[in-house]
Amino acid sequence: MSPFCISNDIQSSIRCSLRRLIREVFFSPVLYPPPLLQRQKGGTNTQYFVTGGAGFIGSFVVDRFAARNGVTVYDNLSTGREEFIAQHLGKPFFRFVKADLLDVARLYKEMRGHNSVWHIAANPDIRKGTESTMVDLEQNTIATYNALECARRNDVKTFVFSSTSTIYGRAKVLPTPEDYGPCLPISLYGASKLACEGLVSAYAELYGIKAWIYRFANIVGHRSTHGILYDLVQKLNKNRKVLEVLGDGRQMKSYMLVDECVDGMVYGFKHAKDRVNYFNLGAEDQITVKRIVEILLEEAHLKNVRVKYTGGESGWKGDVPRFLLSTKKMSKLGWKPKHTSQEAIREAAKIVVKEYLKKTESTWVPVVRQ
Amino acid sequence: MSPFCISNDIQSSIRCSLRRLIREVFFSPVLYPPPLLQRQKGGTNTQYFVTGGAGFIGSFVVDRFAARNGVTVYDNLSTGREEFIAQHLGKPFFRFVKADLLDVARLYKEMRGHNSVWHIAANPDIRKGTESTMVDLEQNTIATYNALECARRNDVKTFVFSSTSTIYGRAKVLPTPEDYGPCLPISLYGASKLACEGLVSAYAELYGIKAWIYRFANIVGHRSTHGILYDLVQKLNKNRKVLEVLGDGRQMKSYMLVDECVDGMVYGFKHAKDRVNYFNLGAEDQITVKRIVEILLEEAHLKNVRVKYTGGESGWKGDVPRFLLSTKKMSKLGWKPKHTSQEAIREAAKIVVKEYLKKTESTWVPVVRQ
Repeated sequence: MSPFCISNDIQSSIRCSLRRLIREVFFSPVLYPPPLLQRQKGGTNTQYFVTGGAGFIGSFVVDRFAARNGVTVYDNLSTGREEFIAQHLGKPFFRFVKADLLDVARLYKEMRGHNSVWHIAANPDIRKGTESTMVDLEQNTIATYNALECARRNDVKTFVFSSTSTIYGRAKVLPTPEDYGPCLPISLYGASKLACEGLVSAYAELYGIKAWIYRFANIVGHRSTHGILYDLVQKLNKNRKVLEVLGDGRQMKSYMLVDECVDGMVYGFKHAKDRVNYFNLGAEDQITVKRIVEILLEEAHLKNVRVKYTGGESGWKGDVPRFLLSTKKMSKLGWKPKHTSQEAIREAAKIVVKEYLKKTESTWVPVVRQ
Repeated sequence: MSPFCISNDIQSSIRCSLRRLIREVFFSPVLYPPPLLQRQKGGTNTQYFVTGGAGFIGSFVVDRFAARNGVTVYDNLSTGREEFIAQHLGKPFFRFVKADLLDVARLYKEMRGHNSVWHIAANPDIRKGTESTMVDLEQNTIATYNALECARRNDVKTFVFSSTSTIYGRAKVLPTPEDYGPCLPISLYGASKLACEGLVSAYAELYGIKAWIYRFANIVGHRSTHGILYDLVQKLNKNRKVLEVLGDGRQMKSYMLVDECVDGMVYGFKHAKDRVNYFNLGAEDQITVKRIVEILLEEAHLKNVRVKYTGGESGWKGDVPRFLLSTKKMSKLGWKPKHTSQEAIREAAKIVVKEYLKKTESTWVPVVRQ
């Protein structure tokens, strides 16, 4: 046995003991009385804890609950923005905690006294995971483990998790039902979300937590900070003459507006009764990237933009070029999406143009839609 | 923003920079030339890297390859034993590295120059994960991420992963085919193995590694260091009068002998041609816990042992009480298990009695089998 091994063993043992000590001390309920959130007049007793609550989808969840319940937003503002929850700041039934999910002692402390955890925080950028392979493991898998572990130790009763269509990988069945297998994701983002689903399922079973897993199509709309429309508008801000689009334009995916998505989540939360409830959330149809580009340019009133496709079936490594989620399970529960993918994209394009497209005098060509 | 937050941010940023620095330095190929393994006379050019190679299943994989190939065993001996690979120690084409998969710099360095990684190391104890929820995350999910990341950086071409039937959770279809969904594991062990499968699938797709995933039934036989037979014999060593058995005895599972399991793995490795190949490995039938106990007592020549069932459908929290894996996909590839579960258990019981049962004079009652 080399000295290197011994030293490693000792190191590992010390690390292990220290970790245990830290966990025991920090997880002590005596140190952390439940944070106080006042109950609203006519409100409910439920205290919601929303991770990523200052983010794109999370902030809509917060808007939905903040009217009648206590809400704590836990967000490190890595992609979330304080302005998305500005309307609630300072209210007595609302708390904003700027902190990281990897800071497990803080997470545990802040979660005390809550009944329901909505774990929406995640690395939202699929492409980032291919460049730095640790991002999804840390920000999705380990962060979700932390959220579940703190929920268990804080005796939280319900746990809602935002998953993704990418867990199915290149599904051979379209529309893909929730019971589809095998789940062989082709991106580290998809892999990490599949890992999280497994954790949610096991925690629910082992520790009596009731869980909801929602597998989202591409979600678009207000407050979006990533995604195809956002990316394309950023490109248009730099160059109004040539618009580079990833892939061959024939990728076909399903899109849903963010408020409709949150509507579905809340409906499922109220009506689904299993120990682990898992649902797809997406429109009933698909739309091609080519059509998305057309709609965006229409809504931006931009003519004379040359669209240049980079080619290839996928937009980037790990991109699932074609997907459509079955909506039957949600239908059976009594909820249906109201908009098609095309309608969602049209609406989101209007928003993204209004919110992000710079009005450059020189290239701004107002066009009357035909 | 509280001072606590700022301090956290700075901490996190320093941690991040340090981590990057460490990774850059340790992953440098200049620092680590490939370890030298001599090529055997008449042997192949393949250099196998077997994690957990001193363990129960891993050591059989090593036996299979060590005859004609270079083999490095990477094992921290947490459950593996040096005696399982004693027959190879000192040979020029064989290396044993006692180190941990969480020591990523070491892992990277030792893996250099290998073509094929067989990642068999894992926490083998499903029950342990319920007591300490971090065990499976660290020893399975993160360890597998490390193995894959080092394989990618070392330009390894093939990656074989040992998964488990527990990823299916309480499957509604028996025998369960490989394409079964949804995979909702009910133990943290199952959750972590599902996480690993996702990682293997994504790495294969993103970085051009060819991968094999084997989902094992319960594996039994020589060198077993855990499992029902091992546990029961340990109990018999303490008490020859009353044998406590977990559950109601009606759990029905599928069993396979370890050498047959490795035989199937090697066959699949040679014959399956997809980017990601995934197979069940188990017998075509099931056996009840009650019958296992009977067989063990027969093979131990023990009469007059009162068997006391603890009751309940499952043996422990997270135990899947009934499973049977479909063997059709392996059959189609041309490989079939040779033994039934009952035969495997009979054989394994003989071994475990011979290897582990103490011969206590006072209670030793030789019995002629009828």
